[in-house]
Amino acid sequence: MADNRPVFQADELIARVSELSKGRLVMRLIGPSVEVSRFMPPQAAGEGDMAFLTNAAYAEAMKASKASLIILREQDLSALFGDALPERSILVCDNPYAFFAFASQLLFRTELPPGVHPRAFVEEGAVVDPTATVEALAVVRAGAKIGARTVVKAGAVVGEGAQVGEDCIIYSNAVLERGTVVGSRCIFQPGCVIGGDGFGFAPFKGEWVKIPQVGRVVIGDDVEIGANTTIDRGALEDTVVGDGTKLDNQIQLGHNDRIGRHVVMAACVGIAGSTSVGDHSMVGGAAMVNGHIDIPAGSGIGPATAITGWGDKPAQKTGFFPAMEGRDFQLAAAMVSRLPSMRKELKALSKRVEELAALIRSAEE
Amino acid sequence: MADNRPVFQADELIARVSELSKGRLVMRLIGPSVEVSRFMPPQAAGEGDMAFLTNAAYAEAMKASKASLIILREQDLSALFGDALPERSILVCDNPYAFFAFASQLLFRTELPPGVHPRAFVEEGAVVDPTATVEALAVVRAGAKIGARTVVKAGAVVGEGAQVGEDCIIYSNAVLERGTVVGSRCIFQPGCVIGGDGFGFAPFKGEWVKIPQVGRVVIGDDVEIGANTTIDRGALEDTVVGDGTKLDNQIQLGHNDRIGRHVVMAACVGIAGSTSVGDHSMVGGAAMVNGHIDIPAGSGIGPATAITGWGDKPAQKTGFFPAMEGRDFQLAAAMVSRLPSMRKELKALSKRVEELAALIRSAEE
Amino acid sequence: MADNRPVFQADELIARVSELSKGRLVMRLIGPSVEVSRFMPPQAAGEGDMAFLTNAAYAEAMKASKASLIILREQDLSALFGDALPERSILVCDNPYAFFAFASQLLFRTELPPGVHPRAFVEEGAVVDPTATVEALAVVRAGAKIGARTVVKAGAVVGEGAQVGEDCIIYSNAVLERGTVVGSRCIFQPGCVIGGDGFGFAPFKGEWVKIPQVGRVVIGDDVEIGANTTIDRGALEDTVVGDGTKLDNQIQLGHNDRIGRHVVMAACVGIAGSTSVGDHSMVGGAAMVNGHIDIPAGSGIGPATAITGWGDKPAQKTGFFPAMEGRDFQLAAAMVSRLPSMRKELKALSKRVEELAALIRSAEE
Repeated sequence: MADNRPVFQADELIARVSELSKGRLVMRLIGPSVEVSRFMPPQAAGEGDMAFLTNAAYAEAMKASKASLIILREQDLSALFGDALPERSILVCDNPYAFFAFASQLLFRTELPPGVHPRAFVEEGAVVDPTATVEALAVVRAGAKIGARTVVKAGAVVGEGAQVGEDCIIYSNAVLERGTVVGSRCIFQPGCVIGGDGFGFAPFKGEWVKIPQVGRVVIGDDVEIGANTTIDRGALEDTVVGDGTKLDNQIQLGHNDRIGRHVVMAACVGIAGSTSVGDHSMVGGAAMVNGHIDIPAGSGIGPATAITGWGDKPAQKTGFFPAMEGRDFQLAAAMVSRLPSMRKELKALSKRVEELAALIRSAEE
Repeated sequence: MADNRPVFQADELIARVSELSKGRLVMRLIGPSVEVSRFMPPQAAGEGDMAFLTNAAYAEAMKASKASLIILREQDLSALFGDALPERSILVCDNPYAFFAFASQLLFRTELPPGVHPRAFVEEGAVVDPTATVEALAVVRAGAKIGARTVVKAGAVVGEGAQVGEDCIIYSNAVLERGTVVGSRCIFQPGCVIGGDGFGFAPFKGEWVKIPQVGRVVIGDDVEIGANTTIDRGALEDTVVGDGTKLDNQIQLGHNDRIGRHVVMAACVGIAGSTSVGDHSMVGGAAMVNGHIDIPAGSGIGPATAITGWGDKPAQKTGFFPAMEGRDFQLAAAMVSRLPSMRKELKALSKRVEELAALIRSAEE
Repeated sequence: MADNRPVFQADELIARVSELSKGRLVMRLIGPSVEVSRFMPPQAAGEGDMAFLTNAAYAEAMKASKASLIILREQDLSALFGDALPERSILVCDNPYAFFAFASQLLFRTELPPGVHPRAFVEEGAVVDPTATVEALAVVRAGAKIGARTVVKAGAVVGEGAQVGEDCIIYSNAVLERGTVVGSRCIFQPGCVIGGDGFGFAPFKGEWVKIPQVGRVVIGDDVEIGANTTIDRGALEDTVVGDGTKLDNQIQLGHNDRIGRHVVMAACVGIAGSTSVGDHSMVGGAAMVNGHIDIPAGSGIGPATAITGWGDKPAQKTGFFPAMEGRDFQLAAAMVSRLPSMRKELKALSKRVEELAALIRSAEE
């Protein structure tokens, strides 16, 4: 694959990474602006390759690396080389891993030809930016807007009146239901469903009467939604996902959830309705959160953890039954239900021992 | 949005709600038949708005509400106003929340133009009622039947020989596989898969030989299936979902499951094969039920609860490890596996204490 | 349905089953080669039916069965009939259940007409074998290859450069993303997503920077992937699923997972990235496995079990909180967090009792 990969001048790549980082990545190039085309591990890198150091375990390999450009932090530079800088080009950077991420986005950028494929279905009344791409068998319904350079891939559906910003990718068979609002630079992996009806029913004589769900899903900028993840539209108000939030595959968000900015959730998380998750929180895979809970910014939930309540402070919470081998699980699980009686026995025994102790004391006197 | 919303005469709306409820909602209008077009919270409601009371906490707000029509129960009417009825129109109703649900269905009804879109794919041998709607890029395979006023949205697939009743909605990219049978007034949210193969294999020399799954999925009337929910076809007999049952998103039902009538399941529930869930049962989110279990009617399963067996009586069962902060989880989890030995120690200690007590008694004598 | 089913001569069916089993199923026909067309339970079987015995509970029913062909093991034959063989044809087979599975594959085989439907979208540069079937509204992108007799059903998407072997079925709305590699005789149930991006981000000033996922998903022969299951492409290296592995619905595999051969996973399993699962392992429904874990061949994971580590030996591990009725759960769960203090109390009490015992001994002396 490397053969077809574009070749960058190091200084040009650095300039474009700087732009992507909005100038926040601190970088300083030492040595000439070599040609680079890919990242490789330090020990495997050669001419045209970049290698970055984030883990001290690779320091020796990095010292000996034949990469054309090595990327490391100021402190690692002096620790590795002292005053004797090597003959190679060096990028000193305060976050080599972020440099790797930004630069990879440039190295692996694929440009799709703009335009609406003749076999796409763009309904009358939809507005597609001339620089956007709508592939064959993709659907854009009436009233929908597709922003500049956004790609709607084959089989994806953008519903009636949905608004999609710039530079988004909507992968095959993803569905953005009617009225969904999406910012810019968002990615929708295949099969995700944004804006299905929330789960709202009124109980009536042992039956369940559907309550129309008329809120929307509103998604900020730079959000990624995983494959087959589902986000329900709000009942009356909107379901909201904030800027920069990344949701892995097969996550479920209920109606009226409010997910903050720069939240990450691993796969298979389920969050019931009307719950909020504060900015910069992290949720482990397969965690489950009840409805109507407010999780403060900066909180963490461990994997496979059920959350049924929260205090008002950020916290790291975890809880799952430990896996055990063979019969041990059966034995331990059987004990769990006896815990309250064990505790009572322990208390009673404790009291009994103190009675005996008193008896002994009185006998001694 | 309110501007485009249809306006109803209160008495006309009440008559149509009565019809939707099959005459089971008890309603009595006091005062003139005002014009209404939406529901609002009591304190925000004004002319043309309806407000309903289900929660005593809003009684004062309701008393002061400027809604054109207020909906409450007989007992709340007298508690709030005694004999001094307000100047507003009042709907006395035995279930104001159900009224809200039914009336909202009328307020938010959207009619789609009937007919098969020229870019739909309706295979030869399919039968589509002339009042049904099949949108562009929707698929209806040979032998399938689509009932009156049913809507098959863009990207949805109705498989070979599938039968769909009247007034159903099959949202985008939902799949009803070959032979699926669906009643009337059912809703299939986007991306759900009805009638994928059950998971059946014969072990053979360390390998797994597929057993063709030749049963169907049979779904009753008034069923709703959530986004990306999957219901497998039966192995030989059918997988069955009863009338009025509501399934949230990302639920999995295995082959030969038999789900009763008016059951509700929250999102992310998984039920293995050949299990039955009785009428009017409620299953919490992310609950998991093993195969070959019969859960009696009227049972309840808590969220994130694993069910591996059941008795023969309806029950409410729950079980998940409590989430803890920081290191507390590690400590508690480590103890769980020692529970059997703790219990032994407790028993041994108890015995030892009684021995000492006997010693003391004999010393005293 | 039986009416349209093909009729087989027993000896012909046996020969074809033998072929399917690659000659590994040991079979011996006693009696004439009767006509057979379906399997039935022993007590319900009649002329033209086959009945097989795997469960001793059905021995008496089998003895009395009117099936045209009965299938059982050598030892069951002698146990049931001794030397007095019945008048019926008998297939003695070392694995009657595997015979049932293989034979059912032949009985329920459906042949689809080969060819690309005029309303399919096969992009220029895709290569479709002339014996393959690409249905209406199915998508095969540029550079993709579809092998002999493989079926791409309506709404399925085979991405750019994906390679699919022979005799596969890709059901409606399944997505095989760009570059996916698939062996032969694989089945993709509806809505599954193979090759969505892995979940990889670099932390940068409280935000998350996407790391392009440029590995692929590589799937062996005879693999089945369940409805709405998702398998992420690798970050740099590939995500791999070995020959003969069967994955149920709504499973999630993270980037760089390496699933061995002939593994079975029940529905709703989630496996985080860079984890390996050894050959012939079995994973119960809704089990969750953390990333970067190596599970040795032949291991087992119980249902609803969270795995956060493993040793280096195959094992059977299980762990989930037992479900309890009513208030019992609340009581037991509250105790779990007190387990460490209970253990301390128990230790302290134990020590105290020994002190008392010493006191008593010294008093006695």
